[in-house]
Amino acid sequence: MSDDHQIDEFRQQALDYHANPVPGKIEVALTKPANSAADLALAYSPGVAEPVREIAQNAENVYKYTAKGNMVAVISNGTAILGLGNLGPMASKPVMEGKALLFKRFAGLDSIDIEVKHRTIDEFVDTVANISDTFGGINLEDIKAPDCFEIERRLIERCDVPVFHDDQHGTAIVTAAGMLNAIELQGKDLKETTIVCLGAGAAAIACMELLIKCGAMREKIYMLDRKGVIHTRRDDLNEYKELFANNTDKRTLEDVIEGADLFLGVSGPDLLPPEALKLMADKPIVFACSNPDPEIKPELAHQVRDDLIMGTGRSDYPNQVNNVLCFPFIFRGALDVRASEINDEMKLAAVEAIRELAKEPVPQDVLNAAGVEALTFGKDYIIPKPMDPRLLPRVAKAVAKAAVESGVARIELPDSYMA
Amino acid sequence: MSDDHQIDEFRQQALDYHANPVPGKIEVALTKPANSAADLALAYSPGVAEPVREIAQNAENVYKYTAKGNMVAVISNGTAILGLGNLGPMASKPVMEGKALLFKRFAGLDSIDIEVKHRTIDEFVDTVANISDTFGGINLEDIKAPDCFEIERRLIERCDVPVFHDDQHGTAIVTAAGMLNAIELQGKDLKETTIVCLGAGAAAIACMELLIKCGAMREKIYMLDRKGVIHTRRDDLNEYKELFANNTDKRTLEDVIEGADLFLGVSGPDLLPPEALKLMADKPIVFACSNPDPEIKPELAHQVRDDLIMGTGRSDYPNQVNNVLCFPFIFRGALDVRASEINDEMKLAAVEAIRELAKEPVPQDVLNAAGVEALTFGKDYIIPKPMDPRLLPRVAKAVAKAAVESGVARIELPDSYMA
Repeated sequence: MSDDHQIDEFRQQALDYHANPVPGKIEVALTKPANSAADLALAYSPGVAEPVREIAQNAENVYKYTAKGNMVAVISNGTAILGLGNLGPMASKPVMEGKALLFKRFAGLDSIDIEVKHRTIDEFVDTVANISDTFGGINLEDIKAPDCFEIERRLIERCDVPVFHDDQHGTAIVTAAGMLNAIELQGKDLKETTIVCLGAGAAAIACMELLIKCGAMREKIYMLDRKGVIHTRRDDLNEYKELFANNTDKRTLEDVIEGADLFLGVSGPDLLPPEALKLMADKPIVFACSNPDPEIKPELAHQVRDDLIMGTGRSDYPNQVNNVLCFPFIFRGALDVRASEINDEMKLAAVEAIRELAKEPVPQDVLNAAGVEALTFGKDYIIPKPMDPRLLPRVAKAVAKAAVESGVARIELPDSYMA
Repeated sequence: MSDDHQIDEFRQQALDYHANPVPGKIEVALTKPANSAADLALAYSPGVAEPVREIAQNAENVYKYTAKGNMVAVISNGTAILGLGNLGPMASKPVMEGKALLFKRFAGLDSIDIEVKHRTIDEFVDTVANISDTFGGINLEDIKAPDCFEIERRLIERCDVPVFHDDQHGTAIVTAAGMLNAIELQGKDLKETTIVCLGAGAAAIACMELLIKCGAMREKIYMLDRKGVIHTRRDDLNEYKELFANNTDKRTLEDVIEGADLFLGVSGPDLLPPEALKLMADKPIVFACSNPDPEIKPELAHQVRDDLIMGTGRSDYPNQVNNVLCFPFIFRGALDVRASEINDEMKLAAVEAIRELAKEPVPQDVLNAAGVEALTFGKDYIIPKPMDPRLLPRVAKAVAKAAVESGVARIELPDSYMA
């Protein structure tokens, strides 16, 4: 069977999955009986007046009598859909529904997508802030850089519930977890690690910021955009790239890759040539996260360097960097203690929880789901598998505890976390 | 058992219903498998890129590959919650979730509540318009008059999907259906009918406008607000009340009720004195819709006039005027043909469909659910019961057909309506 034929077949399968037996992937279901007239007298008028009065008296009662506390909105304007670009809010809807599906599947969170059309950043921020009280938390998705930075910052200020741009922080948390384990396995020290980041979009910047919070040194980071190395003599940088302007004479990937310990690619297919990989320091770490086609194919990379640890965005290679390792659980933890935000402490707690899980023996059902005989912490297993059911209790608990300890939780740790 | 005790017990039951076993009344469920890695590859990356591309090429494909076409947003700012007043968006949430529950229960529509905080009408309109493409239709709810009129008008202009303020039009449709049947039973002619409307809020104005579209004469309508009869010499009227300013010397309820054929109360408890009822014309019609306590108690009204036909908002008296007879089905019909709006033709079709159903023999299961032995078209049965399962096919089909015939449908009548 030809590759083209397989692609056509998968394409048709994906379209069928979305179209049949009903369009889309999510629906609304009832959690209370609604059969008899007596049921409806409780669900709606006149019974519904009672929770209304309770909430009017004390706003916190909205968590007691409505679905708010378990509801996450997945909100996009469709300006950076997957790797497909700015296709507009309507085209983003299948992705946002998909995210809602993952929230439910992995963390039991109810999640609904909202697609926003708008002219200015102000208008987007106003729109989302105005509806934000409806939900327990807000997951921003597929919003282009640099708009996403300002949008997230302003929404965090304005909203009473956690706002989290997953393309930035979800990616950063999972990437950091994998990288820290790789650094440990390669016997390196993060403070001494020279890092090349190919790509300067939302994910790249968030990954580097989080690595710095983990201990990496800003001056040892070389970030590259389409024009090459981001350095202090460039005058075309936005304020977010500016933070990574390196005081260096190096200008190209070849210049900076020489002797580098760690490469993160969030750019495009085949942009890391094997000759460049050869120039890296001993025991290099390469995260080639362009999807579906990485910056260098793992087969090729391992041919060039046998002392390599490598991660990609793909499920068919070891060490898949997949946001689903984080976002369902960080929201689960945040919502379970009614955190007012998702702060650095919570993000770092998620990194640690994901890291640690990779070091533990893997249960048989996880091996079966992954289709492998064994998974042992080492160069081919530095981060947990997405279907690992231990992620939910581990990551959510770590995040919830960090929220309580850092003072952003509005209620105490639920009993279910104490077990 | 004392009344107080019963009230306390019902109150507690209503709170328990909302709080346990989980808070609220709705959740999000998945309509597609999400178990294996293969499922997730279709639901999310990489498979999800396929429907994204299809929608980017042709926006109508959003109906084929996402849940939009079956999804209704119930949107409020909480400025007029039930009869409880302006308690704010959060306090309205149980009502909006209740409405979502009714949409699902009665018409299989997926429905999600959105509570909006805002300063100006502009800001509310912008917010809702900006998120409107997410949904197949928008049900506005519990927004105070006169803001609701401007809000609805502007949203209808701006949104590509139907926008319907149920407190206005749902109430008007069900009220008109009942009234037209009552007028027929009393042997009156709508053109000759003198109408007193006590109350001048959103529901009152919408009811009168719809009755006029059914054939009532504007100059035979006397509307009263808190200051008495709305007449042409008043200078304190907003533009919506202005339309009902009657060129009359009559000033009080007593003045206008004399010889009136039809009374609609959307005001408050016991505001129609029995002495006033005595002054009405032969075979009067009284809809006392203040809830839970009507403008005149049915027992008292029937003592005063034995030639009366009466409706209320209560389920424990005959002829309950209940919006649930209309809103789930008018949206079902509108969405099933992707109507761009809910126009007058569709509203009038709903009135007729509801009217006609009351004239047909009632199936045994409806009698059982209503707890009665018989229901025969006549003064104690002028509108169908809310639990009548025939409402869905009848009203939705009539509305969908009217949408097609009036040119606002974007697709043809589905086969399911042809049966």
